[in-house]
Amino acid sequence: MGQAAQAPSGTRDFLADELRRRKSAIAAVSEVFERYGFDPLETPAFERLEVVTGKYGEEASSLLFKILRRGVHEAGGQADLALRYDHTVPLARVIGTHGSKLPSPFKRYAIGPVWRADRPQEGRFREFVQCDVDTVGSHSPLADAEVVYAVADALEALGVDDFRFLVNSREALRGLLEVYGVGAESGEGVLAALDKLDKIGGDAVVAELAQRGVATDTAEGIVADIAADSPDRIRAKLEANPRGKQGLADIDQLLKLAGGLGGRVVFAPRMVRGLDYYTGAIWEVEAAGYPGAVAAGGRYDRLVAALGGPDVPAVGGSVGIERILAMRETTAEDGQGLDVALTALGGDESGMLRLAHDLRRCGLRVGTYLGSSTKLAKQLKWAHEQQARLAVIRGADEQAAGEVTVRDMASGEQHRVPDEGAAAYVERLLGR
Amino acid sequence: MGQAAQAPSGTRDFLADELRRRKSAIAAVSEVFERYGFDPLETPAFERLEVVTGKYGEEASSLLFKILRRGVHEAGGQADLALRYDHTVPLARVIGTHGSKLPSPFKRYAIGPVWRADRPQEGRFREFVQCDVDTVGSHSPLADAEVVYAVADALEALGVDDFRFLVNSREALRGLLEVYGVGAESGEGVLAALDKLDKIGGDAVVAELAQRGVATDTAEGIVADIAADSPDRIRAKLEANPRGKQGLADIDQLLKLAGGLGGRVVFAPRMVRGLDYYTGAIWEVEAAGYPGAVAAGGRYDRLVAALGGPDVPAVGGSVGIERILAMRETTAEDGQGLDVALTALGGDESGMLRLAHDLRRCGLRVGTYLGSSTKLAKQLKWAHEQQARLAVIRGADEQAAGEVTVRDMASGEQHRVPDEGAAAYVERLLGR
Repeated sequence: MGQAAQAPSGTRDFLADELRRRKSAIAAVSEVFERYGFDPLETPAFERLEVVTGKYGEEASSLLFKILRRGVHEAGGQADLALRYDHTVPLARVIGTHGSKLPSPFKRYAIGPVWRADRPQEGRFREFVQCDVDTVGSHSPLADAEVVYAVADALEALGVDDFRFLVNSREALRGLLEVYGVGAESGEGVLAALDKLDKIGGDAVVAELAQRGVATDTAEGIVADIAADSPDRIRAKLEANPRGKQGLADIDQLLKLAGGLGGRVVFAPRMVRGLDYYTGAIWEVEAAGYPGAVAAGGRYDRLVAALGGPDVPAVGGSVGIERILAMRETTAEDGQGLDVALTALGGDESGMLRLAHDLRRCGLRVGTYLGSSTKLAKQLKWAHEQQARLAVIRGADEQAAGEVTVRDMASGEQHRVPDEGAAAYVERLLGR
Repeated sequence: MGQAAQAPSGTRDFLADELRRRKSAIAAVSEVFERYGFDPLETPAFERLEVVTGKYGEEASSLLFKILRRGVHEAGGQADLALRYDHTVPLARVIGTHGSKLPSPFKRYAIGPVWRADRPQEGRFREFVQCDVDTVGSHSPLADAEVVYAVADALEALGVDDFRFLVNSREALRGLLEVYGVGAESGEGVLAALDKLDKIGGDAVVAELAQRGVATDTAEGIVADIAADSPDRIRAKLEANPRGKQGLADIDQLLKLAGGLGGRVVFAPRMVRGLDYYTGAIWEVEAAGYPGAVAAGGRYDRLVAALGGPDVPAVGGSVGIERILAMRETTAEDGQGLDVALTALGGDESGMLRLAHDLRRCGLRVGTYLGSSTKLAKQLKWAHEQQARLAVIRGADEQAAGEVTVRDMASGEQHRVPDEGAAAYVERLLGR
C-alpha cells in the first residue's frame, strides 16, 4: 500500500510485547512518584497556540506541530492550537488555570507523549514520552533533594542501578565568570558555549568565547577551570565571590540532603546545563552503559512566571524514559502466553465459552480457537504457538460424555473431567 | 490570565483524583481484555492525512483536527497529518503495515484518546478516550461471542452490572426490507431513517421514508414491525426470505453462544445501528441508570478493506468508558492520602530524607513538609490535610537524643524511638 500504509515519519506503532514493556516501565516510575507524594497530572494533547507561542525560543517554535483552524476557518490556512511540546508549559498553564484548587506546594508528575517536528533519526522520534516530576511553590532545599531521591528511585525501578548525579549550580558558574570579569550581559552565551565542552573540545570553546568578545587568556582560564572538573579548584576560585559562594552553598546543601544516595551524588564543575532558566542547583545523571544523560533537572524559580504562570518557585527533574527503554529493546522478553487454550471442534460450543468465562473471571488468560480448521492437531499447534500452559479439548466423544479433556501442553499428559468440574480442575492445575 | 489560561475548548485537565479514577478504570478494562487473549496496540496520535481522507464520510471529515505542514511548508497553510479520529482506521492501517508480523487472527484492544472537532457541549468533548476491542481475521461465530463476553466483563469491571445486550442483524433488517419490496439501492437510507425511531418517533420516520420514495403503507408496515420489537413477529415475517433467515441464524447463534450471560443478551428488532458497515450480528448495550448505549459493536467483514487494509473479516466492540466515567463523577471518592508525613523543623534534615527513602522503598507513600513554617503545629496541620496516618517529628530535642517522635494522626498517641529503629517501627505500626 506504499508510504500511506506506514505510521507517519518519526512515529511508531507499538505492538503487544513492546507496548507491555513500555506500560510496565511507566507504571513502575509512576509508582515511585506516588510514593513520594507526587500527584499525577494529565493535560490535553494540544494547547492554544498563544499559550505556547514565544515560550520555547525560535528554534523550538519551528518544531511545533500546529493544528489548522477548523470548519469555515480551515481554508485560511491558520493554526490556533499546537500539540504539546513538553510537560512544562502545560504545567505553568495549569497552575494559572486551577491555582486555587491545587495543593501548595503542588507536587505533580506527568508521563505522556510530547510531539516535536525534529528531523527523525536513529533513536529520535517526533512522538515520544516525557517523564517529568516537579514541585511548584516551595523554596525548601528539601524539595530539591526529594526530586533527586525520586529520580534515583525511578531509575532503579527502570533497572538502571549504576548511575551518578553530577551536581552544579548556575550561580556558581556565574560567580566564576564574575571572577574572570565576564559580565552578566554575556553570561548566558558564555554558559551555552561552555556546555559544548564535551562535544566540541576546549579549543573550539575558547574560540567561540573569543567570538563572543571574551579575551583569549580569560577564555582559556575559564575553560581550564571547568575542564579540570575539580571541586577544590572551583571552591578556591569562588572563595571571595558572593554569588559563587551562594552557588556552592546550594550545591553543598543538596549533596548533604541527598547523602542517603551515598557517592552517587557528586559536585561536577564540568557539568553545565544548556538551558538558561535554572536558578539554583542543577544536575544531570550519567549511567554506565547509556550514552548521554538518563535524567536531568534542577531548580528554576522564575520559569513558571516566564511561561505565563504565577511567580512561584519550582524544582523538578525529567527521566529519559525513551532512552532507557531503547537500550532494552534488544533484550529478548517473552510474549504474553495464554494460560488456557480452548479448542473448537464443532457441535455446541456455548459450553466452552461458559468455561472460558469462568476461567477468565478467576483471572486466567484464556483464548478460544477462532480459525477455520476443525482438526485437533491444527488446533493444538495453535495452542502451542500461543504458549498455552493447558489446552481444553471438547470433541464429539467428550461432548457425548459431557466431559472435556484437559491437556498439559508441556508434558502432553491429559485427563478427562466432567464439564461441571472442569473450571475448578483447571484452576487447581494452574495453582489458583 | 484570560482565555489563554484555559485548556482548549472541549478538552480537560485531569487533576489527581479524577485522573486516578480514570487510570484505574482503564486498567480494569485492560485487564479484562488481556484475560480474553487480546493484545494491546497503540498507534501514533496522528496519521498521514491520506490515510484518513475519505474514510469517515463528509460530516466526520469536517471534524478532523488537521496538522499544518512544518518548516518552510507551514506558510502554504496545507495540512499533511490528522489527529486520530477513532481506533478503527489506525487498526486497518496497522494491518496493512505490519500484516506478516501480526498473529492471525489478530486480537487487539486499544484504549486511548481520539480527537473530534465537534461543537463542545455538556458531556461531549473534543478529546476523549475510546475503548475498542476487535478480532480481525476470523469468520468464526466464537469470535463474535468472545467480544460480547469481553465487553460484558469490561462493563462489570467498570461497576456497570445491570445491563442488556440488544442484538439484531443487518441481514435480518435488509431481509425485512426485501419482504416489503424495498430494494437494496434505498436500503441504507431506509435503515438510517429507522435508526431514528426512538429519537423522532414513528410518524416522523414514516414521513422520512416517504421522502425517500417508500410508499406510505409500506413505510407504516416496516415501522410497525420494527417498533413492535417482537422477535416472533419478525421471525414470522422473515420465514420465506433467505437473506432474513441468514440474519436470524446469525442472531440465534450469538444468543446461544453467549448463553452464559443468561437473559442479558436478547434479540431486539427495534435496535438498528446507524453505521452502515456492519455485515453480521450487531448489538448495543443499554444499562439501568445510563442514557443511551454504554457499549456497541458487531461484525463488519468488509470494513478493514474499505479503510485501506487487506480484505479480512472482523468483529469488534467499543465500551463507552467516558459515558460511564461521567456518571461516576458525582461520587465522592477519597483522595490519595499519605501513609507518613515527615516534619522539617530545622537542623540537619538529611536523616529525615534517609528515613523517607527507607519507608518509600517499602512501598509507603511518604511526604516531607516543604513549606516555610518552622512551627510544629503548622506542620501537623499540613500532615492532617494530607490525610497522613502517621507523622514523624524530629525537633531539636529529638535531634539531640538521636531519636524521632512517631505520632498516630488519628488518635494523637505518640512515642519516641531511636533514629536507627524508626523505619522498622513505622512499618510495623502500618502493618508492613
